[in-house]
Amino acid sequence: MFEKVLIANRGEIAVRVARACRELGIRSVAVYSAVDRDSAVVRLADEAVCIGPADSRHSYLNAAAIIEAARQTGAQAVHPGYGFLSEDPDFAEICADNGLVFIGPRPEVMLALGDKSRAKALMAEAGLPLSPGSLATVATAAQARTVADETGYPVIIKGAAGGGGRGMTVVWSAEEFIPAYERTRIAAQAAFGDDRVYVERYLTQARHVEVQVLCDGYGNGVHLGTRDCSVQRRHQKLIEEGPAPALSAATLDALAATALRGALRVGFTGAGTFEFLVDETERFHFIEINCRIQVEHPVTEMITGVDLVHEQLRIAGGMPLRLRQEDVRSSGVAIECRVNVEDPERAFVPTPGRLTRFVPPAGPFTRVDTHGYPGYLVGPHYDSLLAKVVVWAPDRDLALSRMERALHEFEVSGPGVHTTIPFARRVLEDPGFRKGRYTTNLVDRLLGVPGSPGDEPCPSSSAHPTRRTR
Amino acid sequence: MFEKVLIANRGEIAVRVARACRELGIRSVAVYSAVDRDSAVVRLADEAVCIGPADSRHSYLNAAAIIEAARQTGAQAVHPGYGFLSEDPDFAEICADNGLVFIGPRPEVMLALGDKSRAKALMAEAGLPLSPGSLATVATAAQARTVADETGYPVIIKGAAGGGGRGMTVVWSAEEFIPAYERTRIAAQAAFGDDRVYVERYLTQARHVEVQVLCDGYGNGVHLGTRDCSVQRRHQKLIEEGPAPALSAATLDALAATALRGALRVGFTGAGTFEFLVDETERFHFIEINCRIQVEHPVTEMITGVDLVHEQLRIAGGMPLRLRQEDVRSSGVAIECRVNVEDPERAFVPTPGRLTRFVPPAGPFTRVDTHGYPGYLVGPHYDSLLAKVVVWAPDRDLALSRMERALHEFEVSGPGVHTTIPFARRVLEDPGFRKGRYTTNLVDRLLGVPGSPGDEPCPSSSAHPTRRTR
Repeated sequence: MFEKVLIANRGEIAVRVARACRELGIRSVAVYSAVDRDSAVVRLADEAVCIGPADSRHSYLNAAAIIEAARQTGAQAVHPGYGFLSEDPDFAEICADNGLVFIGPRPEVMLALGDKSRAKALMAEAGLPLSPGSLATVATAAQARTVADETGYPVIIKGAAGGGGRGMTVVWSAEEFIPAYERTRIAAQAAFGDDRVYVERYLTQARHVEVQVLCDGYGNGVHLGTRDCSVQRRHQKLIEEGPAPALSAATLDALAATALRGALRVGFTGAGTFEFLVDETERFHFIEINCRIQVEHPVTEMITGVDLVHEQLRIAGGMPLRLRQEDVRSSGVAIECRVNVEDPERAFVPTPGRLTRFVPPAGPFTRVDTHGYPGYLVGPHYDSLLAKVVVWAPDRDLALSRMERALHEFEVSGPGVHTTIPFARRVLEDPGFRKGRYTTNLVDRLLGVPGSPGDEPCPSSSAHPTRRTR
Repeated sequence: MFEKVLIANRGEIAVRVARACRELGIRSVAVYSAVDRDSAVVRLADEAVCIGPADSRHSYLNAAAIIEAARQTGAQAVHPGYGFLSEDPDFAEICADNGLVFIGPRPEVMLALGDKSRAKALMAEAGLPLSPGSLATVATAAQARTVADETGYPVIIKGAAGGGGRGMTVVWSAEEFIPAYERTRIAAQAAFGDDRVYVERYLTQARHVEVQVLCDGYGNGVHLGTRDCSVQRRHQKLIEEGPAPALSAATLDALAATALRGALRVGFTGAGTFEFLVDETERFHFIEINCRIQVEHPVTEMITGVDLVHEQLRIAGGMPLRLRQEDVRSSGVAIECRVNVEDPERAFVPTPGRLTRFVPPAGPFTRVDTHGYPGYLVGPHYDSLLAKVVVWAPDRDLALSRMERALHEFEVSGPGVHTTIPFARRVLEDPGFRKGRYTTNLVDRLLGVPGSPGDEPCPSSSAHPTRRTR
């Protein structure tokens, strides 16, 4: 096993990885930008190295500085967390070139799966069901328009190199298509340095359901069940739960088995997430694979008892998976609410500032992953995720009550600081959410986005979708 | 179900009960002494009433003030927590007389089980194995000496009305007996207002193992497995774990079944704990029953997923137990370390003071029940328990690593403030503890108490016990 691991990330996930390292007897090295010198991981890790200024291009995205920090401290491996360099095959290559183990899939697997259209093609070969649309990227506007017309509107145009919910455009009718296509290409070029896009059917009444898998370097893999991540605002997840509610056991089993088949087919190693859209008839369609630990991984940990970051470290350390599928038991229900430093009343604009008061919830079956503390300065430089509140209970009703209790007792305040807690509480009170019957339109409906189609699965509304404004 | 419950306690258990109430949709009323007005439960409960000055005789033990607070706020039931009035049958009676539900067993059951020698007699009738010694209290020194001589030394003299580890004397030889008997009677009179004592065989190589039971008012009951509480200093528990390690499955099953039989036999209702001593051959002997929630109840919650305080509230509200024995599943291992504000270097003397820094651990499978917060003033008036750190893992080795990680990251400091964290870490490092092979002598061995007999179960040392000084 590794003796020392460098954590190439910040915020709550860096804290999470530092804890896992300590539990496995591995020394940890935190890296931090100049504005993060008072961050929680600097205190919790065994060593800490400043790698650059606030601007993440010169710190958390600065491969050379990270490699140098690893060299200086004698780290043998790099845990990339999520975001930043976590899905960058070049960085994985650079690690290998410098004798460092990158904790994630092999670079060539990351490269293949990071290209969304190539991932779709690979998964189609493995027999995974896809949404109707272009498998490959479409090179010209006319080609793309043909695909869209054949698929039927609405369609969604996605950047091949995209991810994290960015660089996507929904098109509701043929006449809108060409300008939307051009806009998406330009945006994709700007965001990812790659203007390739592809087109697929846009499901108006869909749930976002994903499957957690773990695979070792010896061809062994297990799935750890499903998470529903349909509570999204502009493709950013706000609340996640597992197992996905209100789906039949047969569908949940089929999703999990399908994902694992895909993972084994492409030689995936480590912790990965297979994302699907599930329509109102419980048909599901593969969307993409995330080659990293997921923000919402604690949901799975709480229902299975498996520590996913431990497993990542073991697998990267060359150990075979100890878990067999029959050892993975799912029990009860877990829900996660992301607490972002944003103002839900003002279009979720980030509201950085100093936390004069910070009292996270605690108590039975309640977990809070956070880098916050009283006096912590939330800066404007990075994403606004401050904490993840995760609860478990034997059944969903009690899990909902427990989450309401936990959010009720969470106190965060500071001059100008707002959080998404009030909005999460609104979602928890929503009758559709309480019933477990909701789609990716839930948040728009609650926010009263004009023309949002509602989110109670209902074939008639799907057949005649209201035109959407965004 | 109740609409409003009064919490007749303070500290971490009051916080614990307030959380359970909120999760069940019950409004909670905190009561507090004048020095506790800034306590966490005052913030977390729906209402709070000051019931008197710091001296607990005039506040937390003041039945009249508590009843009046319940009347004023319209509470329908009283949760007594542990300690204070929790095992006082008179208080349970007074509650009933005032139309309040006391959340605990019926007063007559509490009365019978609160008398330790009567509890032993009842359990002997139910077929529970007892330590050799007097079943009834012994009225004269000569009678007592005869019992001791027949039992064989060492013996332990216990106050019939005692509990919580107080009012007990170990006697190592016949010539010491009479003075020890007189001393114990005087101490029992002073502590409990009752000088009755009884005598039983003192086991020098014993584990303290207890069984959690839940019984409703309709004759239904379940057990929730075992906890080992052998890590004690002067009969005060420091570390608890479940299931009890290094015992055969047959012994664990027999303990649990035996306790449940005893509980059903006496018409026990609510959450109770049956305490046993287990000797080096795994024979076990009933000691006593605790008619209340136990400090260490989170250990059982983490391995079973059952919220014991919820169950107490439901049972007291007249609901039948939903759990059947086959629904109770135990998974993995949980360990609790009590963090007391005491100086282990100075005979565990309490070190009250203001907490200038207070950063409890968090993260996967880690629960901290505490009323502490940064700036909290730990006063000299009450017991020194500040926090309970509880971890869970699929196996004991990982649970130990997780606990070490959690204690490592726990920061508590303030002028003059010490905690038992360093001592808990010493216990966790002890090879005997790591193997799960330890007895109630573990702490004395670590502290180097002169003449302590060691704690690795070994028949020869038990046959020739070294004389102990305390």
